[in-house]
Amino acid sequence: MKKIAIIVAGGAGTRMESILPKQFLLLKNKPILWHSIKAFASAFDDIEMIIVLPEEYIEEGVNIAKEFTDAHNIDFVKGGNTRFDSVKNGLGLIKEEAIIFVHDAVRCLVSAEMIQRCYEQALHQGNAVPAIVATDTIRMIDGDKSISIDRNKIRIIQTPQTFQSTILLPAFEQEYRETFTDEASVAESFGKKIFLIDGEVENIKITRPIDLMIAEKVLEKRIYKS
Amino acid sequence: MKKIAIIVAGGAGTRMESILPKQFLLLKNKPILWHSIKAFASAFDDIEMIIVLPEEYIEEGVNIAKEFTDAHNIDFVKGGNTRFDSVKNGLGLIKEEAIIFVHDAVRCLVSAEMIQRCYEQALHQGNAVPAIVATDTIRMIDGDKSISIDRNKIRIIQTPQTFQSTILLPAFEQEYRETFTDEASVAESFGKKIFLIDGEVENIKITRPIDLMIAEKVLEKRIYKS
Repeated sequence: MKKIAIIVAGGAGTRMESILPKQFLLLKNKPILWHSIKAFASAFDDIEMIIVLPEEYIEEGVNIAKEFTDAHNIDFVKGGNTRFDSVKNGLGLIKEEAIIFVHDAVRCLVSAEMIQRCYEQALHQGNAVPAIVATDTIRMIDGDKSISIDRNKIRIIQTPQTFQSTILLPAFEQEYRETFTDEASVAESFGKKIFLIDGEVENIKITRPIDLMIAEKVLEKRIYKS
Repeated sequence: MKKIAIIVAGGAGTRMESILPKQFLLLKNKPILWHSIKAFASAFDDIEMIIVLPEEYIEEGVNIAKEFTDAHNIDFVKGGNTRFDSVKNGLGLIKEEAIIFVHDAVRCLVSAEMIQRCYEQALHQGNAVPAIVATDTIRMIDGDKSISIDRNKIRIIQTPQTFQSTILLPAFEQEYRETFTDEASVAESFGKKIFLIDGEVENIKITRPIDLMIAEKVLEKRIYKS
């Protein structure tokens, strides 16, 4: 089936102590967004991409994507006020049935192998939401106190959250709610059961300076291995 | 008040792809356990320590702690089958009223400043359990499905979990339960309200090879800053 990755890079990244949005920060001399595009391009020769960016950064995004546009159809669309709106803007370009990957641009360490696994599961089960188990003890705030939670029951959710277009497109026709923090919550509210899939410890979200350091180390190790 | 840190290093560390228990792996040419001892020694001149180790590694621990034993009273005790048993073995050496820090040896990046904050809060409120907010979306397994959880309510728990001895010693007289995954859960089951305190993003648990890489980066940055 057709494969389309919506790479969401709408945020402004104040936590990075940097004015440049974090998807443009350099990692091994390439912008974070470049690494994300590369991961999807490596996963499938025939994948198309839709990159969601703040309007004033679309030109920058086009430059970054340039080396991939010979092989892949890549569109750009501006972000909205919420993640829901940003993804919805991206979905607006999709007219054919497809497997849709919705991916955080700042999770640029995702492997091609995991993207391929998400595709297979979504094809057969309707969706695939990558998750890893918690390695730390977890508590939940409950009013003015906190209660301990069985960490074996907790899953930390990653992206690409992957769906058949026949599920995701109508799900995004719902009216926005504050609980729509990711695509799984939107599909779930639309009545769809979510199917988790094994995520990757290294598939981190680069949101803090320490994450950038981690990402550098991960890439150094990959280069060393290959 | 008297200050005693129980540094728990009972585990065998199979996840590190290494035969050496992870608390002995080198980080900037010093064992992880050394860095943990150093953090507590830096926090308080008058702190005492009890280090819990597998019996066959106590000699190794004594060697690592050698440079701190002029300034600090450091005892060693062997670990038990569970974390509960290991901590209980450590508590068995405490005969006087004290503020007790229970710390994972593999969280060797903890700052002296945070240890001091934990002390102050435990002195005034009875306990201090460091926690950070979740930055990822969280789901909870519920039978054969998973449900989305408001991540603003989730706290990721760290150590040193810090208590007045008058709370922790009797709490550990309870019969062991499987839900006793940390000291907070033991104190809570004993009827004590848990008071969280701001943890530190860098205060990671070194359990996987990637964590060791992160820790190296964090230490490099600290050396560069100082």
